[in-house]
Amino acid sequence: MKKKTKVTVIGSVAFDSVETARGSRANVLGGSAVFAALSASFFAPVNLISVVGTDFPEKYFQMFKKRGVDTSGLTRKKGKTFRWKGKYDSDLTHRKTLSVDLNVFNGFRPEIPANVSSEDYLLLANIDPELQDWIFKRIKPAGLVACDTMDLWINTKRRALLKLLKKVDLLLLNDEEARQLSGEFNLLKAAQSIASRGVRTVVIKKGEHGALLFSKGLSFIVPPFLIHDVKDPTGAGDTFAGGMIGYLSGKRTITDRDLRSALVYGSILASYAVEKFSVDGLVDISRRDIDGRYKCLGRITRF
Amino acid sequence: MKKKTKVTVIGSVAFDSVETARGSRANVLGGSAVFAALSASFFAPVNLISVVGTDFPEKYFQMFKKRGVDTSGLTRKKGKTFRWKGKYDSDLTHRKTLSVDLNVFNGFRPEIPANVSSEDYLLLANIDPELQDWIFKRIKPAGLVACDTMDLWINTKRRALLKLLKKVDLLLLNDEEARQLSGEFNLLKAAQSIASRGVRTVVIKKGEHGALLFSKGLSFIVPPFLIHDVKDPTGAGDTFAGGMIGYLSGKRTITDRDLRSALVYGSILASYAVEKFSVDGLVDISRRDIDGRYKCLGRITRF
Repeated sequence: MKKKTKVTVIGSVAFDSVETARGSRANVLGGSAVFAALSASFFAPVNLISVVGTDFPEKYFQMFKKRGVDTSGLTRKKGKTFRWKGKYDSDLTHRKTLSVDLNVFNGFRPEIPANVSSEDYLLLANIDPELQDWIFKRIKPAGLVACDTMDLWINTKRRALLKLLKKVDLLLLNDEEARQLSGEFNLLKAAQSIASRGVRTVVIKKGEHGALLFSKGLSFIVPPFLIHDVKDPTGAGDTFAGGMIGYLSGKRTITDRDLRSALVYGSILASYAVEKFSVDGLVDISRRDIDGRYKCLGRITRF
Repeated sequence: MKKKTKVTVIGSVAFDSVETARGSRANVLGGSAVFAALSASFFAPVNLISVVGTDFPEKYFQMFKKRGVDTSGLTRKKGKTFRWKGKYDSDLTHRKTLSVDLNVFNGFRPEIPANVSSEDYLLLANIDPELQDWIFKRIKPAGLVACDTMDLWINTKRRALLKLLKKVDLLLLNDEEARQLSGEFNLLKAAQSIASRGVRTVVIKKGEHGALLFSKGLSFIVPPFLIHDVKDPTGAGDTFAGGMIGYLSGKRTITDRDLRSALVYGSILASYAVEKFSVDGLVDISRRDIDGRYKCLGRITRF
């Protein structure tokens, strides 16, 4: 039997302060690598590579351990953990960043811990594409490489991002970012344009409207798993990415069918993330819950 | 064998002047009943009830005839045909009404032609709910009654609309309108609130993001049929409604499976409508084309 493929996630670990139409929270656990690692952990052993400050509490290391997330690569550095503060519009989709304090993340270039292997599936969660590339070069991944990004990097580090994309198998971005990166308003055209940059599979996340996947000869759409109460969309995209790569890590060779299932699992995981603030929606669920929603979405969309 | 159920459509016939990011057209054929009747005509014989002015060209009567739309109920009145002028934002979703001239539609109370039967399925396409109710009372429908509406009537004739809803089997409205009518931002809650007003089946159209259907014990989501080039969204919702009721008219008793299929057909018909200006996207297609997209959407969404 094949040894279980691990997922290595590099991205940010942060304290978020968030205000939405459904409430607010100050200095709660967040960051792209945190959501992505927890999400992937339902499917595979996970290595987390990031940095925190001395203010980062021990209890979170315990939480990661409980979820099968190896934190050997989570450096603790003198100083404060990365902080982000944001406020969402009443539509629970658009948001304004009120403040960003990089703190220990400033200029961070991680050690690659011994347990990270080039055989792992690698998720370059949303961070500076130069840092994503730096990691890529050190790990020299032989398996699947997925990359998430955001408007900030498309605006400020476009060249580095485009260079990185040539090495990436799976790119995830939201609809606005796909339009921004490609210069195409129509999402089919945007995906084609991005694929022509060298990415094999392009995933366009549409938030509350579901997600699209385009790969060679494959188009797939998943509608959203509708929930009654969205509390906090923070981390939904990261969770989506983690769920996808986590699911795919269980596959020896990735078929179109696997890509479809992975998109659905990404969407389902994201539906849990947005139901509560911070990572609260992800810590109290089981693989059985996730599979339940997966089947339910199947029933809701079949015709 | 059961006699084929006809669809009777009441709504507006208009000359539209439209400007979108993809071009503009002046005084082209439009109106809720026109899009709905043409769309339904791919599935069933259709009766069109509306009014036009003396400026309405004979060629359109010919076009309706060719598509199996009976215009006995299309009154020609002295004066000008209803005119609407609008401009779409670059997102091809939001629009501004620049002018409305009711003309012959002002105070219109139609004769019900002899060929309209209470056995027909009735589509109350988007017009003043007081006129919709007036028609309802005269036809005394025994079959399915579907109703489409818009923000204008929710704002200005809320009471008449709510009264009408108690008699309606199937209500179609878009996401913004569902929120407006129910006071609920969350679409699941909005649909539940609207259903509690007495409507058995609620369809929420989300434009480029697909559509949702809620009926007793049934939730169903259809993602959009993605197209490369949206030229003009005018009439998409009316076309959606016409496609749904047209498809359902072929069913003796309506099952959940039929409702699912009807929602998909509505969505497919709308995808044709938006590809061209005015009704141009609906006149050159066949049932075979429509079924092709139906199957394609099945492939694209299956997991």
